[in-house]
Amino acid sequence: MKAWVWALLVILSGGGSLISGSDGTASPRPSEATEACLMCHASATPGIVADWERSAHAMITPEEAVKKDPRSLKESATKIPEDLSKSTIGCAECHTLLSEKHKDTFEHNGFTVHVVVTPEDCAACHPVEVKQYAKNLMSYAHGNLTKNPVYRNLADSANGVQTLDNGKLSVRPPDEGTNADSCLYCHGTEVKVRGLKTKETAMGKMEFPVLDGWPNQGVGRINPDGSQGSCTACHTRHQFAIEMARKPQTCSECHKGPDVPGYGVYEVSKHGNIYSSLGKEWNFKEVPWRIGRDFTAPTCAVCHVSLTVNDADEVIAERTHQMNDRLAWRIMGLIYAHAHPKSPDTSIIKNRAGLPLPTELTGEPASQFLIDPKEQGARIAAMQNICLSCHSEGWVRGQFSRFENTINTTNEMTLTATKILLEAWNKGVAKGVAQNDSIFNEAIEKKWVEQWLFYANSTRFASAMAGADYGVFANGRWYLSKNLQEMMDWLEFKLQTLKLQELQTTMEKPKTSGTKGTGKASVPKEKPKATTP
Amino acid sequence: MKAWVWALLVILSGGGSLISGSDGTASPRPSEATEACLMCHASATPGIVADWERSAHAMITPEEAVKKDPRSLKESATKIPEDLSKSTIGCAECHTLLSEKHKDTFEHNGFTVHVVVTPEDCAACHPVEVKQYAKNLMSYAHGNLTKNPVYRNLADSANGVQTLDNGKLSVRPPDEGTNADSCLYCHGTEVKVRGLKTKETAMGKMEFPVLDGWPNQGVGRINPDGSQGSCTACHTRHQFAIEMARKPQTCSECHKGPDVPGYGVYEVSKHGNIYSSLGKEWNFKEVPWRIGRDFTAPTCAVCHVSLTVNDADEVIAERTHQMNDRLAWRIMGLIYAHAHPKSPDTSIIKNRAGLPLPTELTGEPASQFLIDPKEQGARIAAMQNICLSCHSEGWVRGQFSRFENTINTTNEMTLTATKILLEAWNKGVAKGVAQNDSIFNEAIEKKWVEQWLFYANSTRFASAMAGADYGVFANGRWYLSKNLQEMMDWLEFKLQTLKLQELQTTMEKPKTSGTKGTGKASVPKEKPKATTP
Amino acid sequence: MKAWVWALLVILSGGGSLISGSDGTASPRPSEATEACLMCHASATPGIVADWERSAHAMITPEEAVKKDPRSLKESATKIPEDLSKSTIGCAECHTLLSEKHKDTFEHNGFTVHVVVTPEDCAACHPVEVKQYAKNLMSYAHGNLTKNPVYRNLADSANGVQTLDNGKLSVRPPDEGTNADSCLYCHGTEVKVRGLKTKETAMGKMEFPVLDGWPNQGVGRINPDGSQGSCTACHTRHQFAIEMARKPQTCSECHKGPDVPGYGVYEVSKHGNIYSSLGKEWNFKEVPWRIGRDFTAPTCAVCHVSLTVNDADEVIAERTHQMNDRLAWRIMGLIYAHAHPKSPDTSIIKNRAGLPLPTELTGEPASQFLIDPKEQGARIAAMQNICLSCHSEGWVRGQFSRFENTINTTNEMTLTATKILLEAWNKGVAKGVAQNDSIFNEAIEKKWVEQWLFYANSTRFASAMAGADYGVFANGRWYLSKNLQEMMDWLEFKLQTLKLQELQTTMEKPKTSGTKGTGKASVPKEKPKATTP
Repeated sequence: MKAWVWALLVILSGGGSLISGSDGTASPRPSEATEACLMCHASATPGIVADWERSAHAMITPEEAVKKDPRSLKESATKIPEDLSKSTIGCAECHTLLSEKHKDTFEHNGFTVHVVVTPEDCAACHPVEVKQYAKNLMSYAHGNLTKNPVYRNLADSANGVQTLDNGKLSVRPPDEGTNADSCLYCHGTEVKVRGLKTKETAMGKMEFPVLDGWPNQGVGRINPDGSQGSCTACHTRHQFAIEMARKPQTCSECHKGPDVPGYGVYEVSKHGNIYSSLGKEWNFKEVPWRIGRDFTAPTCAVCHVSLTVNDADEVIAERTHQMNDRLAWRIMGLIYAHAHPKSPDTSIIKNRAGLPLPTELTGEPASQFLIDPKEQGARIAAMQNICLSCHSEGWVRGQFSRFENTINTTNEMTLTATKILLEAWNKGVAKGVAQNDSIFNEAIEKKWVEQWLFYANSTRFASAMAGADYGVFANGRWYLSKNLQEMMDWLEFKLQTLKLQELQTTMEKPKTSGTKGTGKASVPKEKPKATTP
Repeated sequence: MKAWVWALLVILSGGGSLISGSDGTASPRPSEATEACLMCHASATPGIVADWERSAHAMITPEEAVKKDPRSLKESATKIPEDLSKSTIGCAECHTLLSEKHKDTFEHNGFTVHVVVTPEDCAACHPVEVKQYAKNLMSYAHGNLTKNPVYRNLADSANGVQTLDNGKLSVRPPDEGTNADSCLYCHGTEVKVRGLKTKETAMGKMEFPVLDGWPNQGVGRINPDGSQGSCTACHTRHQFAIEMARKPQTCSECHKGPDVPGYGVYEVSKHGNIYSSLGKEWNFKEVPWRIGRDFTAPTCAVCHVSLTVNDADEVIAERTHQMNDRLAWRIMGLIYAHAHPKSPDTSIIKNRAGLPLPTELTGEPASQFLIDPKEQGARIAAMQNICLSCHSEGWVRGQFSRFENTINTTNEMTLTATKILLEAWNKGVAKGVAQNDSIFNEAIEKKWVEQWLFYANSTRFASAMAGADYGVFANGRWYLSKNLQEMMDWLEFKLQTLKLQELQTTMEKPKTSGTKGTGKASVPKEKPKATTP
Repeated sequence: MKAWVWALLVILSGGGSLISGSDGTASPRPSEATEACLMCHASATPGIVADWERSAHAMITPEEAVKKDPRSLKESATKIPEDLSKSTIGCAECHTLLSEKHKDTFEHNGFTVHVVVTPEDCAACHPVEVKQYAKNLMSYAHGNLTKNPVYRNLADSANGVQTLDNGKLSVRPPDEGTNADSCLYCHGTEVKVRGLKTKETAMGKMEFPVLDGWPNQGVGRINPDGSQGSCTACHTRHQFAIEMARKPQTCSECHKGPDVPGYGVYEVSKHGNIYSSLGKEWNFKEVPWRIGRDFTAPTCAVCHVSLTVNDADEVIAERTHQMNDRLAWRIMGLIYAHAHPKSPDTSIIKNRAGLPLPTELTGEPASQFLIDPKEQGARIAAMQNICLSCHSEGWVRGQFSRFENTINTTNEMTLTATKILLEAWNKGVAKGVAQNDSIFNEAIEKKWVEQWLFYANSTRFASAMAGADYGVFANGRWYLSKNLQEMMDWLEFKLQTLKLQELQTTMEKPKTSGTKGTGKASVPKEKPKATTP
């Protein structure tokens, strides 16, 4: 039924309940509050209303939903608040919940409404998922970037506006809009209420909150109620289709770039190939999700999130929104791949050198912040249990052995790049940690970043998920190798600049003193720039 | 019904009309001329005949079609020519229309047939669309490239064959085949009739025209009837399915590369993610296209082309084949992003410096050729009206504010690159405008091109359509930043070459004269090449 | 019916045949041996069992299958071995076939089972396909890489781990795991039996073979029975769906990277666009495959593999697993594009210079190993016959003429790159063939590789399949051009190093002797490295 018909019926009936099923029993219907919302929003924002009408939220009341087989439940609350349980979950249920906690709450046609629905709101019916998600690195993605001075400097060095003044490049830090448009799109912005603004609408003048950092659906968004995360990053509004969360394209929104090429790798893997070719006939809605019946190859969700069972209804993997409880390694090297962090808040990590990194610059792990081999073993076993639903133990052992080998060899290639960079710093042709300069702003430093962030990561993702070319020519080992040669050439080139300056110095003062001609004294303290004579 | 059965029936019945619907009324059927075509072509080119049989063209006569609800019409002619209206639209209707205007018309089994069906032909039934399309930059895409000496030089410098002679690279301009195979594939070739050629066929010897610039379906193709454009660029022959034109893959044919990464960005955007995950259940055929009912997230066509309505049948956006009437900015920077050109014929543009560019080399707009802020405002409002079908005003305002911020910051990053290039020209280490040399042939110039054509464009598309990674690591800001550092290094490297030459000169003539040793005189007028001693 | 139900029924019925069709005739059912497998594996590996249940193998017996219209047969054996013909093809049929030939055969619950099913096994029912595939370059992909010292060196130079010792990079050859994870993922590993390993299972202790080079499904895998190839590279286990083999994603597993970008090109081609937009309604299962009826645009399989017919049941193209019998050219340039090799075993090729390459370093073909123009003509005609099902002769002629033009111009651009490299070798700034050094390890050599392996290949694939941007900005001509400029700059840079050394030498010994100052004598025999003073 179209939403505006709803609205019309509500008007005609004075808001009473006149909709019945064909058997005389009442169909599930929205609350009166939601019906009031729909009266305007069916025409004001028809897209999201129609989208919501397709959702499970619009089709069943929590009261009915909890009567289902417990295993098939998508809501995890053992007890749904009374006032939410008897009508379907509509606009008002989410946007007026806990309104006192939301700084973006405003008065709207007699309701106290907030704009940004947060995990704390979703927890009313989905508390287990929200609790799990709080242990997910993603929920800390905002702070893990902005509160880590090294990572923030990497972001600033990439996103800042550079200008050329007197032959020298200087960097202006990125503005808030740029940050929201780049890193924080996925990591999450901080959404803050700036004030209220009056706006002319079809209903006359109305006041709405003005938000900074909005729009945003990043996984670690800082919300106006103080919570962090955004369920809609994966459970897209307002259909919240489990089908969508289970499909790999959802993950591609943040996991396709050269830094975390998971989706690209999946696409060309055998698993991705099966999904693309045959997935149209799979059942993406069934809960629990039955291996072999509902699908014949994993999507991202199968290995990392979903509750899966076999034909005998035995659980193969429990549903998790922590997502790292089957991940022994963090293969997104920052700077090296390493055992997974213990806490999802990685801003607390400090290595021995005092840098906020999970390893030393030379690769040794900051072990006290990382899970130990026993925990790694448990996570590997949990992951392998999924693999074993289709593959033999020998197959799986071979796959994981190659993967761990790849972690080692890519870390070695990162170490070599780091050593070249250290040499550049030591020889004074680039400025780094010791010179208290950004370690991300010079050309050789950017090459060094690409070594681990693009090429080592790509190679590891390819190994983990069998997307071969990403381990070779598509940002893989080919580039790991080539990049080292080019870093060496850069070093040679900059040393030439020094030599040339020495020679010039020697020649310009040839007769004054024999000792001055050695050139040593002329090594500049300042990094030489092309345009500084 | 299979085409060859048609052909057989036509033969058996002497061409008369023997096909009736089950209710005794005549089913729509092809003209006799088309039936004659089908007699051979059903077996000669079975693929396109079967494809056409799936088309709306093959299923309804214009006479019947115009009786439909006007809003749902796909043909825009108020009066269809009599001889076209009573049979379905088949081979003969399009390929024999206005044959006297077509230089590729030839005698073919008693018919005067032309090979290349053009917008002028389509205008018989779709005049409004053809008229709109004539205001689309795309329809001028051939001339906008080939008649602009700067852009043509860019193309030639990319596509020409370089050879190494005596240690120097020289460029041979690209041949016609190469141009047709690269830039003009999308921009459109000029299709010219070279002559007729006799060919042995299953029907005996027959003559066919030989065409230069063929095949081609580029958006700005110059046709043998003098018209420009190719409707089949998007409305793929011979099914001409509206479903296909509305799907984003159609646009990807020309809009995926690093220069205009629209499709790639869309793919990883939330909108693209919804389309990929749930689009299989959408209705891609309905006209007008109903927001929320027929689809729940925009494809390219929704925002840029299609007639869309809400549940109350109110028009959200009018159908347009001009496509830029909701585009305030041209974000494909040539060289900078700028207000949209007034005329689709951009070859008429000249900046103050006399270059055929919509901005100065330093970014200031050539305002007299560009739409003014008022027109920009109207276009932004028209576009936002679509957004507002699903998003609140605050959401939309935030999105557009970031987008315009990105236009500014990317233009700044392009300006910085331009300043480095100007320094290279001024210091004599590269040759540019003043030296009357190509501004696209040297390594630093190619890096400069990538700054705006790849990285700034990618960043802007990412911002416009929320495909985050394209604004960061996937050809985005990361590369904008890195590229500047590398341009500076290139400059330093080339200045070294000069210095080294000075030093050598100084050393080789050390005793002759004190004044000659300053080196100034030895700055070469010719750009130094690696192989010129 | 679920597999475990099968298992249960088998138990209850003592293994007898109790399943009947509704007409009283026996439904096809697995052999007793397979039923024994299913008893455990339905729960041990539910994914693959369920996948197999969807396969044609599980639905029909060979005996019934051979009764079908011969043209529609997917099995090519004229006589199926008696013991295979009366039950469906299940686990036991493939995994116990010819077990004496398989070194990975082991005793498993009373059966002699082997892990790796090979083309020799498949040949029992599909002998023609296996024979054809043996003429496919792919079947030799392992040896063509590993037995060719040039290609192997390319692989080693990309995949080896580089370390920095005393300021110099050195390379450790890649280990077996790395090779299996990169090149050999597609080319195929050599699967060898290392021994047996006892493992605790739900059924108690059992012994399983331990395999090296496992898992792998590369097209040229060397199998434990001595055969080469892996049918499951394209016919994915255990559904072996013809639908999947016919879809382009299958090919993308190995053909998407920058070296062989076939899938990427297809995706943005008009053909790919039609497939993506409308392919969901095509019939991917029909054999023979009817052009225009079953599909309206080619996938990879249509042009390269499948049996296709027109409406009159005339064969347009015969099924082939040789795949190159419609390929006149090998456009994956190694180093230049060239006429297709005669033998699929390319490790036998030697050029005049004695290198194992199909052309000289300067491009002239090693003709005795390549097909001649007559054979090329026949292959082109066979391919064009497919094109002509939808396109006119003029269209096809134009397309192929551009394609061959592109082969020539890209080969020219490769030649220019080679000449620059030769100059680098001759001038002593890089070490190549004459110095008995790897021709792939230095930065300029890697740039040279990218010239042909990435950019020339990409441009040619774009031309062959009309994926325009891959011929321009997406690794196409833009990079072909830019790369040459950068190679020249590299050469200049390294010559500077030499000059600088000369100058230093001159200056340090200024008074000793006039003749020593020429610098000629100081050209180092060893390639100068940045860190060697």
